[in-house]
Amino acid sequence: MLSTKFAIPDVIFGRGAITHLAQCAKRVGAKRVFFVSDQGVEDAGWVGLVKGILRANGLGCVYFNEVNSNPRDKQVQKGVEIYREERCDVVVAIGGGSPMDAAKGIATIVGNGGEIRDYEGANRIMHPLPPMIFIPSTAGSSSDISQFCIITDMERKVKMSIISRSLVPNISIIDPQLLVTQDRSLILASGIDAMAHAIESYVSKLASPFTELHALNALKLIIANLRPAAEEKDIEALEQLSIASTSAGMSFSNAGLGDLHALAHALGGQCDVLHGWVHPTLLTSVMRYNLPSRMAKMGEIGRLISGSDIRSDQDAALLGIDTLEKLFAELDLNTSLRELVPDKSDLKHICTTATFDACHLTNPRPASPEDLMSICEEAW
Amino acid sequence: MLSTKFAIPDVIFGRGAITHLAQCAKRVGAKRVFFVSDQGVEDAGWVGLVKGILRANGLGCVYFNEVNSNPRDKQVQKGVEIYREERCDVVVAIGGGSPMDAAKGIATIVGNGGEIRDYEGANRIMHPLPPMIFIPSTAGSSSDISQFCIITDMERKVKMSIISRSLVPNISIIDPQLLVTQDRSLILASGIDAMAHAIESYVSKLASPFTELHALNALKLIIANLRPAAEEKDIEALEQLSIASTSAGMSFSNAGLGDLHALAHALGGQCDVLHGWVHPTLLTSVMRYNLPSRMAKMGEIGRLISGSDIRSDQDAALLGIDTLEKLFAELDLNTSLRELVPDKSDLKHICTTATFDACHLTNPRPASPEDLMSICEEAW
Repeated sequence: MLSTKFAIPDVIFGRGAITHLAQCAKRVGAKRVFFVSDQGVEDAGWVGLVKGILRANGLGCVYFNEVNSNPRDKQVQKGVEIYREERCDVVVAIGGGSPMDAAKGIATIVGNGGEIRDYEGANRIMHPLPPMIFIPSTAGSSSDISQFCIITDMERKVKMSIISRSLVPNISIIDPQLLVTQDRSLILASGIDAMAHAIESYVSKLASPFTELHALNALKLIIANLRPAAEEKDIEALEQLSIASTSAGMSFSNAGLGDLHALAHALGGQCDVLHGWVHPTLLTSVMRYNLPSRMAKMGEIGRLISGSDIRSDQDAALLGIDTLEKLFAELDLNTSLRELVPDKSDLKHICTTATFDACHLTNPRPASPEDLMSICEEAW
Repeated sequence: MLSTKFAIPDVIFGRGAITHLAQCAKRVGAKRVFFVSDQGVEDAGWVGLVKGILRANGLGCVYFNEVNSNPRDKQVQKGVEIYREERCDVVVAIGGGSPMDAAKGIATIVGNGGEIRDYEGANRIMHPLPPMIFIPSTAGSSSDISQFCIITDMERKVKMSIISRSLVPNISIIDPQLLVTQDRSLILASGIDAMAHAIESYVSKLASPFTELHALNALKLIIANLRPAAEEKDIEALEQLSIASTSAGMSFSNAGLGDLHALAHALGGQCDVLHGWVHPTLLTSVMRYNLPSRMAKMGEIGRLISGSDIRSDQDAALLGIDTLEKLFAELDLNTSLRELVPDKSDLKHICTTATFDACHLTNPRPASPEDLMSICEEAW
């Protein structure tokens, strides 16, 4: 085995973990917190709670919520200006991937100057960021765990993958209680994103024994708990999804992802689709494409997904793919790419753009824009 | 689930990982490294290699090797004086638990002043330590991963457990190639220490889903690889033990240990025994004692150790304990406590001392000094 890296934030996990926020903020030197979230999390009541916790502990708080789903370069720049004007010292974010990624983008520029597009790609951040404490409100993006930050360049219509050890927050506070305010649709979109993280990182070129352990743990828990979490909002099932998402984050942050995410980023930049909804349309087609390069691992995944102990790796892998397609159908999810891409002629540009995404580099099987096009045709 | 914490260093893992040392040292700001090791690691050639790597990259290096097996308070103090005189800025250690724990003790006093006994117990280190980069040469202690530091107070004849988030090194460089210079005895003593870390942390009061995942991974790998690693020095098996030890470290560092380690520390302070050799004498007796408090988990461990799928948790647990005892016998290890404690009248003092060790707090079943005495009687 070649040398691999494994880095994660300090994790505080459990129901009620959010109450440790002020103590954590003080530990990293906070006096005046730059606090990022969005309207959805405000409506759920969590923004008010965070403000209350900070206030009760004598910490200043500058609140910023100008964040879209698929956060944008200009929003990051706006946040940077406010952070500087207000002389903040620590970044706190609560939310799904969008507020957390926006917060990472802001922290990157505060620590390094320039514009966010200067840092697109892997390992281009050279100077330290202000301390970051993240609280995920979904079980999916794992931005609270990962080295990844995805920001949309509005001019080029590209979701940029920015990957750096510096983007791992100092502390991730994961409180499964936050998940109960999600609706069915958000639970599913997030859970399937975590599933995609587990599967892509398990077969990634940079997978290591530590990332593999977490990827399989995540996948096992998602298969067992996605449905009861979404249909019944069962708190035990939601807590298991939260563990799963965290494990998936520990895996993909260190092993990287693959062409499913490369395509999802290219597509999201072009069509502004909710990230999680791309996966049911493309995941199984990408799995079929990668199968010849990772037969044994795809067989293992297939057994785990299907619950079968079928001997042949290829048969097990194909059964796993079928089982996933049945699951998506039973959950009534859209699996046609055409529903997401209004103009089919955009596909060519999307496939070319995907080959420049950092996630493309760790896909287990080499893929040209034409190969990606055939995947999209299958998923159309 | 109550809130739990999970913290680990940045891990660089793989054959040849040691070559990344200088780059890592520069990343944490090194100009003049305080480098800790011992005679055994010198003889194996690794100390010379580390010096060469530091020198070739323009880094200063002050070498310190006055470290016993079971490192002592006075040795820590001596190291601190040299560190200060020489104005070092980063601590690098290579070795088993002893040089790494000595290095942690030195870093603690450099950052916090006073004497090492001031920090005995949990969470008593208040100020930052100089950056630490550790390179384990055994697959067992996991001091390169953990929040633990064990130093002997020579006056009281006590091995002090010092536990703090600050004791997690910044970077752990784990290179399985280092394991090939160990002899059979060291491979076994280290591997059984890692096994004890996995078992005790799995049933600990502070176990969490993340520590449990790593504990079971460690135990599975140790059962499969301990014998080929020790008997044939098979590099693949040694690499698997290295992964196992790292996983066990991630588990016990965050979940804590139990009365086996509390007793081993008390006994090691009194009798200066090699730590790993305590476990074959006491592990199964402690497991039997804890069984009523963790029936389901001990059953799961028992199935994993024995390879049986027996249904009853109690039967599976007892079968696992029997299987371990057979393994120790087949490996020709001493399993009689009397061989380690020359004077039986010391046992009473050892059992009382053990109840003051921080590891005692996380043992799953409450134990009085008398309970510990009955465990020792069984193991005598």
